[in-house]
Amino acid sequence: MIKSIYWEEDWSQGHVVIIDQTLLPLEKKFLTIKNAEDMWEAIRFLRIRGAPALGVAAAFGLFLGVRGDYSNSQDLLNKVKEVSDYLATSRPTAVNLFWALERMKKIALSQENFLPREILEALWKEASSIHREDEEKCLQMAQYGIELLPENARILTHCNAGALATGGIGSALGVCLYAGSQGKKIEVFADETRPLLQGARLTAWELCEANIPVTLICDNTAGFVMQQKKVDLILVGADRIARNGDTANKIGTYSLAVLAKENNIPFYVVAPSTTFDLSLESGSEIPIEERGQEEVVQFGGQRIAPPGVSVYAPAFDITPARYISGIVTEKGILYPDYIESIASLLS
Amino acid sequence: MIKSIYWEEDWSQGHVVIIDQTLLPLEKKFLTIKNAEDMWEAIRFLRIRGAPALGVAAAFGLFLGVRGDYSNSQDLLNKVKEVSDYLATSRPTAVNLFWALERMKKIALSQENFLPREILEALWKEASSIHREDEEKCLQMAQYGIELLPENARILTHCNAGALATGGIGSALGVCLYAGSQGKKIEVFADETRPLLQGARLTAWELCEANIPVTLICDNTAGFVMQQKKVDLILVGADRIARNGDTANKIGTYSLAVLAKENNIPFYVVAPSTTFDLSLESGSEIPIEERGQEEVVQFGGQRIAPPGVSVYAPAFDITPARYISGIVTEKGILYPDYIESIASLLS
Repeated sequence: MIKSIYWEEDWSQGHVVIIDQTLLPLEKKFLTIKNAEDMWEAIRFLRIRGAPALGVAAAFGLFLGVRGDYSNSQDLLNKVKEVSDYLATSRPTAVNLFWALERMKKIALSQENFLPREILEALWKEASSIHREDEEKCLQMAQYGIELLPENARILTHCNAGALATGGIGSALGVCLYAGSQGKKIEVFADETRPLLQGARLTAWELCEANIPVTLICDNTAGFVMQQKKVDLILVGADRIARNGDTANKIGTYSLAVLAKENNIPFYVVAPSTTFDLSLESGSEIPIEERGQEEVVQFGGQRIAPPGVSVYAPAFDITPARYISGIVTEKGILYPDYIESIASLLS
Repeated sequence: MIKSIYWEEDWSQGHVVIIDQTLLPLEKKFLTIKNAEDMWEAIRFLRIRGAPALGVAAAFGLFLGVRGDYSNSQDLLNKVKEVSDYLATSRPTAVNLFWALERMKKIALSQENFLPREILEALWKEASSIHREDEEKCLQMAQYGIELLPENARILTHCNAGALATGGIGSALGVCLYAGSQGKKIEVFADETRPLLQGARLTAWELCEANIPVTLICDNTAGFVMQQKKVDLILVGADRIARNGDTANKIGTYSLAVLAKENNIPFYVVAPSTTFDLSLESGSEIPIEERGQEEVVQFGGQRIAPPGVSVYAPAFDITPARYISGIVTEKGILYPDYIESIASLLS
């Protein structure tokens, strides 16, 4: 199984290995990351991406940035703060990255009365835990999610919610990869996912690597594929879920959900429980990041639209809870009424 | 106003001018077409495209291919057949192209007892008529269509159904261009329309040229734009309409129609009455052309998907009549029940 990131060798001498996602799908190149600068560069230039994967990357990046000899613990703690601030500048909107850095700083502070070497080991262990927890949650989601698949399931997915986006096998795509690994016969339609084509470049690649039959479609073809009854269910990831179940995910997800409902096709969100944000009453409170227009009007360095055109490029959209058949988490599958099922999951 | 194709100078010495659509939106270059070979090349390599525009191009191409000195009419008639067969090989699935060639052959045959020069003049006049009729139908559709626009209309359209696709101002986009030319304040959202990006390359360009505000969106963003109430109505063209109103149009149209219905947004098809095919009882009888996978997996010479992936690339989809608020034709706007309104239009 593909791993987007892993630690290699013993903690005191080892390093991180990542797959350079900017070269996919044409080249499968692994990069050795030995210091914080390398990790900063890898994050900034999207060599590694996907919210959970970025958390793991930031945690290990912090450890790599502070590893060394210290005469006293305070020097190490100062260094932890410094490297954390530095790594936080790599992708300014990546919530999981900040969350992981905070968790690392907390561990360092909780160990301030220990020797520098003991604090370092604790930091490495914390980074490893962040990774392992993510891996376990992916597997648990997949184990619940696989129960939703009929025989010879034909699944449609959007964007990339796979191993390349997480420290494990992924969320929505993780269900597919796990099903494949268990010998279940499935096939997957992958939306190409404009403008950045994560579906064409990454999801299709992961499925090819896993020998799972995959058919690439343009985003505007998903509805027709459903109308033609070529799809049994839809699995997508999530970036943030409000306490009523409204779900923010990659732009295009809302359209899939509406088309699924119209064609009586079950539509499932697959996301770890950390995706729920109980401070948000509904999806209307989720801020929508807008991307730069160059992602839409340029392609491979070539301009595809006239100079005078405006561009609207939201990165995410909001799928109202009423279109969602169920939400697969690492603790089980939630069904409507989501206000109740989400509250009881998190209590 | 942009013209995709026009005749320049007197019939016996003149030539056709087209805009080279393969260079749009970055370069506006006009090509002089003086013989059938040039026209064949222009059609084959998509320098001119769009069903009605191809009819006009084929008709003038035939005339250019047969113009010359003949000692007797039979030689000219033989030449008409030969050039027609030749031009028919340029785009094997373009129905309007065959239709126009047939019409030209018929005129030639009907004149077989006249002098070669008289037959030639009749052929040129027939080509001009095909062009002028198309132009007039576009204007008539636009005059009906403009009545559907509220004040400050915000219109969403798909693919390119504009001047670049026809001999006139277009069908769906023609309504927008006409509204703009009449001083109506409108704004347009243009779907980029993967895989060939006719929306980004052509529709956005036509609107920019006409100084009509246009916002380019990825196809997967159209649903979110509707959900956010940024759109008042949808206007699309059509490739073929069955006698119950089911409509074949560029892939992605069906999804727009479903999303429009879900968001209570009127969805109109704009198409000349020649688009109706009464031999088809419903949309399920319309054959769906599949395109080559290279259009999806390659972009600007660059491959964007892994080698092992399958691709499903239908060129069109079918929008069931129940999603269509009205069909704007050159003879008026049709409303449900379409079986009745279409039959009475064509009777």
